[in-house]
Amino acid sequence: MKSLLAAITAASALMMTAHGAWAATRSFEMNIEDTRITLVDKQQFHTFAFNGQVPGPLYYVDEGDEVNVTVNNLTALPHTVHWHGMYQKGTWKNDGVPGVTQEAIKPGDSFKYKFIAEPSGTMWYHCHVNVNEHVALRGMWGPFIVRPKAPTALEKKVTKDFILMFSEWDSKWADKPGFGGLPSDKPDYFTINGKAYPDTQPIRVDKGDVVRLRLIGAGDTMHSFHLHGHSFKVAFKDGFPLSQPYMADTITFGPGERYDIIFEANNPGRWMVHDHVDSHTVNGDRPMGGIMSVVEYSGIPSDPWYDWAGKKYQPNFYYEESLKKGPGQHANENLKGQAIQ
Amino acid sequence: MKSLLAAITAASALMMTAHGAWAATRSFEMNIEDTRITLVDKQQFHTFAFNGQVPGPLYYVDEGDEVNVTVNNLTALPHTVHWHGMYQKGTWKNDGVPGVTQEAIKPGDSFKYKFIAEPSGTMWYHCHVNVNEHVALRGMWGPFIVRPKAPTALEKKVTKDFILMFSEWDSKWADKPGFGGLPSDKPDYFTINGKAYPDTQPIRVDKGDVVRLRLIGAGDTMHSFHLHGHSFKVAFKDGFPLSQPYMADTITFGPGERYDIIFEANNPGRWMVHDHVDSHTVNGDRPMGGIMSVVEYSGIPSDPWYDWAGKKYQPNFYYEESLKKGPGQHANENLKGQAIQ
Amino acid sequence: MKSLLAAITAASALMMTAHGAWAATRSFEMNIEDTRITLVDKQQFHTFAFNGQVPGPLYYVDEGDEVNVTVNNLTALPHTVHWHGMYQKGTWKNDGVPGVTQEAIKPGDSFKYKFIAEPSGTMWYHCHVNVNEHVALRGMWGPFIVRPKAPTALEKKVTKDFILMFSEWDSKWADKPGFGGLPSDKPDYFTINGKAYPDTQPIRVDKGDVVRLRLIGAGDTMHSFHLHGHSFKVAFKDGFPLSQPYMADTITFGPGERYDIIFEANNPGRWMVHDHVDSHTVNGDRPMGGIMSVVEYSGIPSDPWYDWAGKKYQPNFYYEESLKKGPGQHANENLKGQAIQ
Repeated sequence: MKSLLAAITAASALMMTAHGAWAATRSFEMNIEDTRITLVDKQQFHTFAFNGQVPGPLYYVDEGDEVNVTVNNLTALPHTVHWHGMYQKGTWKNDGVPGVTQEAIKPGDSFKYKFIAEPSGTMWYHCHVNVNEHVALRGMWGPFIVRPKAPTALEKKVTKDFILMFSEWDSKWADKPGFGGLPSDKPDYFTINGKAYPDTQPIRVDKGDVVRLRLIGAGDTMHSFHLHGHSFKVAFKDGFPLSQPYMADTITFGPGERYDIIFEANNPGRWMVHDHVDSHTVNGDRPMGGIMSVVEYSGIPSDPWYDWAGKKYQPNFYYEESLKKGPGQHANENLKGQAIQ
Repeated sequence: MKSLLAAITAASALMMTAHGAWAATRSFEMNIEDTRITLVDKQQFHTFAFNGQVPGPLYYVDEGDEVNVTVNNLTALPHTVHWHGMYQKGTWKNDGVPGVTQEAIKPGDSFKYKFIAEPSGTMWYHCHVNVNEHVALRGMWGPFIVRPKAPTALEKKVTKDFILMFSEWDSKWADKPGFGGLPSDKPDYFTINGKAYPDTQPIRVDKGDVVRLRLIGAGDTMHSFHLHGHSFKVAFKDGFPLSQPYMADTITFGPGERYDIIFEANNPGRWMVHDHVDSHTVNGDRPMGGIMSVVEYSGIPSDPWYDWAGKKYQPNFYYEESLKKGPGQHANENLKGQAIQ
Repeated sequence: MKSLLAAITAASALMMTAHGAWAATRSFEMNIEDTRITLVDKQQFHTFAFNGQVPGPLYYVDEGDEVNVTVNNLTALPHTVHWHGMYQKGTWKNDGVPGVTQEAIKPGDSFKYKFIAEPSGTMWYHCHVNVNEHVALRGMWGPFIVRPKAPTALEKKVTKDFILMFSEWDSKWADKPGFGGLPSDKPDYFTINGKAYPDTQPIRVDKGDVVRLRLIGAGDTMHSFHLHGHSFKVAFKDGFPLSQPYMADTITFGPGERYDIIFEANNPGRWMVHDHVDSHTVNGDRPMGGIMSVVEYSGIPSDPWYDWAGKKYQPNFYYEESLKKGPGQHANENLKGQAIQ
């Protein structure tokens, strides 16, 4: 395994599209790197991380942009990158499926993906080689957000925007890259953005915010996301606006699916958010872990019995700061692991 | 463990709400009690049952009511009660999440929950301590129905109203309270309202009835509910009316989700209803059990080969009689277990 | 076990319905036969196959038709046939549930089912005895399509129509008919129409086609179907048209559910379709198998690295040719297994 930290380059240029609108060409580079991440406490996992982080860097582009990504495989196993949800109109050989649209990228090799960002919405990317191991156990996924040319009235009201990627892990494969992801596996760790409670971060809001949570099923199982103290509108499915957003307090979704839910922060307090699959709230055999977090309103004083009293807050755990920066490939220091030599 | 049967007190008083409407104050008391229930045949389970029954007593209140519930923990482990779906506007410390909204209720202690019943619809309550064991294995859940001020046209037509709570159990933890609910568990019993077929009860209807089934995912897995001989309208999600109810004969839902489905009883006969997850129709290693029941129309003669020929019918298994009684906390004798000394 | 291949007879006759329209009487015969099928490579499975094929023969009838099916049980175990989704108005004893609507059909016996085909849409049939084994492990299911009297505007545009039935298998029961389907099972093979990749078949389309995929959850688990390079409209649920079809690229469904999705073939290429439950893309412990296929546009040249370069194409694997034939009971040679003596 190599320990290179890739030099990331990103270039942009405006171009005239076929439809007469201006669109940008956005060029990025991304490495696949053997990386040790920590799920929670002392539980580590050997991943093949995109730019050394799990989830990978945020791609944030405008609808219609031309996207160029040079992917360098610095691991000892073959990989590809599939841009889940992208139409790839006229560019099907950039769809990232080994044996169908391309040959897998061999160790040490690179592949340049080039496609138009279409359609808009909450998309994601992931390896498409041996997905039962690489996606389910090796953290090979990240968010890909395409900003719409014509946002809906509802999303225009959003004041805070968060990305949550859900997955699970079977610790018996933590140190066995190239193995695992078998039907007999029983995942015992469950994470949002690669971390389990209490090592997740709060979702901080102010009263009056309109909050968007972009839920992405990045793993292998169903999740049932429940928000306390509020109902939400189910507003987007796989990036597409629903013509009739519906109200709920709990939403179940499967691998590959994305739901954008939007709620008004109108009820100050501390509110649990969690997976209602009960067994997804453990860390190994210890209860009260896994897929849990807290929506914290500003102005609510802490309490001595609060689990997170005195917790060091790390902004941008949910990419909320990156999403404010506009188009680009955005690294996320919170999600970085340690390079494996 | 204590064997007290709590004295249940309920008091009501009318009050003027902030919005000028009359609403009631409803005060209840509920114990958490070590209780042995029988899932089916000889399979028993040690639960921490609300008022000694699984599911717990029905709370039926009006939208806008002030609800007061004093919860007494008579078991040897800490608990709370979360009122799933309630907004808890201005009362977030009554949301029942240990370490986030309150300290867990210690053995022998009590906690008084106080909140406004909002929004309306099919809600539920459950413990929020160690949910992987207490919710998934110890029966700590019950129905909480908030009658709407402005019912929909569709629900006004309902003539029969039933509550079905779905869950599953791993028998190896039956007699080990304080343990279990691990990721490696494999549930082997599957129940509606705490009972498996053939020890469930028929859903009895008359031709012409408009039937509402309130489906509540109270356990740890997905369920796929199928009704024979009819299609139904999916009318409510998590208590909220869908603006466009849709037709189906099978509906999949996850933990924490509620769907209210409504159908016309226009087809006399005996009709199976069951979980279409095939493995949820066993009792341990014996087929033709688990989550199954029969919609029985009145006037249909029995047959000698009918599984339930001669079965002793217990009304109110689905709270259908309790729901007719109007607001209150309604005990359900069918669901009572045996106190554990 | 007997090795008879049944003589299939089908007769049709027009009749006047109660509503004054002409409808047909369609009479069929179907055997249940011990049959060895091959899921993929060398992995075989002992099934109780309808007319010796898995899935069973396609029933394609018109809404309002009278359907008569004589079912002959040539196996050593009891069975029934349930016509999932059929209202069975006035014919509840033809609903196929042992111990509720009929006595199970004993080995060597026959049962004649008679009912009106109502409602229209994508339905299916399956055994209702010991579903945890017979449905989950023994291939006792097939498609039942009722052509609507009043098709929707969207479905009228369809130019290619495919049926995909999803299921899973635990290989340890492959040669143990009468056993298996326990809660402790861990399926290790995952199939579309009884075959796993690479032994599935491509879905072949031409640019300009409007493609309908009828997804049927015939097994025991959730599936999350993802189509690359396109979005689709979710158009029908359990045969019923949605008043507001919604867009998606991935759809999760449970056992017993059917979704008809419709997409425009407007993007020539080779496009993966697969279950996004990662662990459903293995064959035993080997990756890159299970529930995967490829949408192949005509005119796209092969590549030497294409998994299916040189593959022998078998039309009608998805019943697309049978569906063109109009009403009848349509055998499918691709899906036939070997009789077990």
